[in-house]
Amino acid sequence: MYGKDDVRVEERERPAIVEPTDAILRVTASCICGSDLWPYRGLDATAQPTPMGHEYVGVVEEVGADVRSVKVGDFVVGSFFASDNTCEICASGYQTHCVQRQPGAASGGQSEYLRVPLADGTLVATPGMPDADLVPSLLAASDVLGTGWFAAVAAEAGPGKTVAVVGDGAVGLLGVLAAKQLGAERIIAMSRHADRQQLAREFGATDIVTERGDEGVTRIKELTGGLGAHSTIEAVGTQEAMMQAIRATRAGGHVGYVGVSHDVSLPGLELFFSGVHLHGGPAPVRRFLPELIELIWNRTIDPGKVFDLTLPLEEAAEGYRAMDSRRAIKVLLQP
Amino acid sequence: MYGKDDVRVEERERPAIVEPTDAILRVTASCICGSDLWPYRGLDATAQPTPMGHEYVGVVEEVGADVRSVKVGDFVVGSFFASDNTCEICASGYQTHCVQRQPGAASGGQSEYLRVPLADGTLVATPGMPDADLVPSLLAASDVLGTGWFAAVAAEAGPGKTVAVVGDGAVGLLGVLAAKQLGAERIIAMSRHADRQQLAREFGATDIVTERGDEGVTRIKELTGGLGAHSTIEAVGTQEAMMQAIRATRAGGHVGYVGVSHDVSLPGLELFFSGVHLHGGPAPVRRFLPELIELIWNRTIDPGKVFDLTLPLEEAAEGYRAMDSRRAIKVLLQP
Repeated sequence: MYGKDDVRVEERERPAIVEPTDAILRVTASCICGSDLWPYRGLDATAQPTPMGHEYVGVVEEVGADVRSVKVGDFVVGSFFASDNTCEICASGYQTHCVQRQPGAASGGQSEYLRVPLADGTLVATPGMPDADLVPSLLAASDVLGTGWFAAVAAEAGPGKTVAVVGDGAVGLLGVLAAKQLGAERIIAMSRHADRQQLAREFGATDIVTERGDEGVTRIKELTGGLGAHSTIEAVGTQEAMMQAIRATRAGGHVGYVGVSHDVSLPGLELFFSGVHLHGGPAPVRRFLPELIELIWNRTIDPGKVFDLTLPLEEAAEGYRAMDSRRAIKVLLQP
Repeated sequence: MYGKDDVRVEERERPAIVEPTDAILRVTASCICGSDLWPYRGLDATAQPTPMGHEYVGVVEEVGADVRSVKVGDFVVGSFFASDNTCEICASGYQTHCVQRQPGAASGGQSEYLRVPLADGTLVATPGMPDADLVPSLLAASDVLGTGWFAAVAAEAGPGKTVAVVGDGAVGLLGVLAAKQLGAERIIAMSRHADRQQLAREFGATDIVTERGDEGVTRIKELTGGLGAHSTIEAVGTQEAMMQAIRATRAGGHVGYVGVSHDVSLPGLELFFSGVHLHGGPAPVRRFLPELIELIWNRTIDPGKVFDLTLPLEEAAEGYRAMDSRRAIKVLLQP
């Protein structure tokens, strides 16, 4: 990432083991995240040039002397923050806040080779080499599925619950999938794009609301006896989306928010009188990886459907353009 | 309440049954709430003159035709919002957000007689006429104890947890008591007033932190291995107190906030990366009343200790002055 609208693919030095807890992966597949679009749009200041990519699957090429849980030749899924998975915060399920946390793809995941710090606490090996058609789903587990899943857990989606989902990007759509898996009775996806509505329905949405903002809130209330949803997933990160999520939720209900909040400011008095629970932040994907890998391996879920464009790594710039213009929901890059 | 610094006690018409679900109480004891000080200080615009008081215990004098669960002669404790206690929101434990909610002391609790709407869903009768020394504690259950209890529940105080309490008013102090009853291992009260520190220790505080703001946060982190508290109770309602509570809590921990948020605005990005759970609002005291009355009746807890000044109702203005100047923690008024 050289700056706004400027992504280049170039030869860089192959990463090497730095710490004895590192692993080097040969990347099988990587992708472009919604959050990668912030610097692409010039909205996040980043030191340039910056290696990009924090979602990845691959085969272990080399491990440091202290690595125990993954070995050379393993196919692994990683999470976007590296964690030791042993500290008190990790033990409580918040690996993204690990006392030793580091960017999980230290050298940038949109590449052929990748150095992953704290390999034991960050990577999870699959039961064997995956069939090719499982790779997109395993890649999704690395971030978007794990994030949508965390949002649904944070929103306490479950049996008997009505879940509203604000945001129809890959995370929101996989929030729908997660809510369905967690047993939600009714899932209301908020989307005004036909292709995304279709995918939301495939993932388990029972209702679609096309209105946004206060009109969207009014529709959710109409669909829930005037009370609002029990659980709302916020997967955008704007002021409008956060307020829409809070207002669409009944008192005592739960908002799970995973959109990275840019310029969001929550009015205290309104939040106070809303009576909702609020929980979110960077998803501790590592907590969910073993379970998600199993659901994918057993072909219970197919989150890889969110990838609607696959490009060779050399065409990464086109992938950014496609996601920026919303021509693609999610772009998979093949090294 | 005639306006800023202007409280008067005057003869008003005795309240009568308006709705068949009303009850009329002869008030045994009432008190002044921290929230009553906002209009007293001119910080809340109120139509004047306004009958004041929403914390009350008393004896049922008269009931409407539809009242079933309390009868004439019962000693009752009420909550500050009236609720039907039958709607879906009440059933989920959020009676302060009841679809029929109304001010629980419709005619002002700082008085001799009081009309309480939705009596069946709002009032709870004690097992008999209480001994005089139990009356302050039962009165406390009506708001400050119920609110501190809700804060501790919202903060998920419990066995093995370290609980920090921001605010040393009556609600914060009773948050300490609640955390202790809920089994918290360690309770850190934040207070710089010797008398309140003493009461906090009587209620179960194991540590006292006198620093405030970022220095207070640093102290809490020092006391918790650098991680922050598992659970933090916010019982003030200012920007500083809310940020102090959020920053004092570890990732994955819980903030229970019950201070009525005035001019509070929560920065989205900081909240996102804090990883805390946030829950609070007007406490659904009615949810906890049966349990709290039992704990008081059995003399397991003595929340009435927060009343350090008792005045006849005629001297209400002096009570407001004493609380405003922090000469008194909490003032009990006897009609």
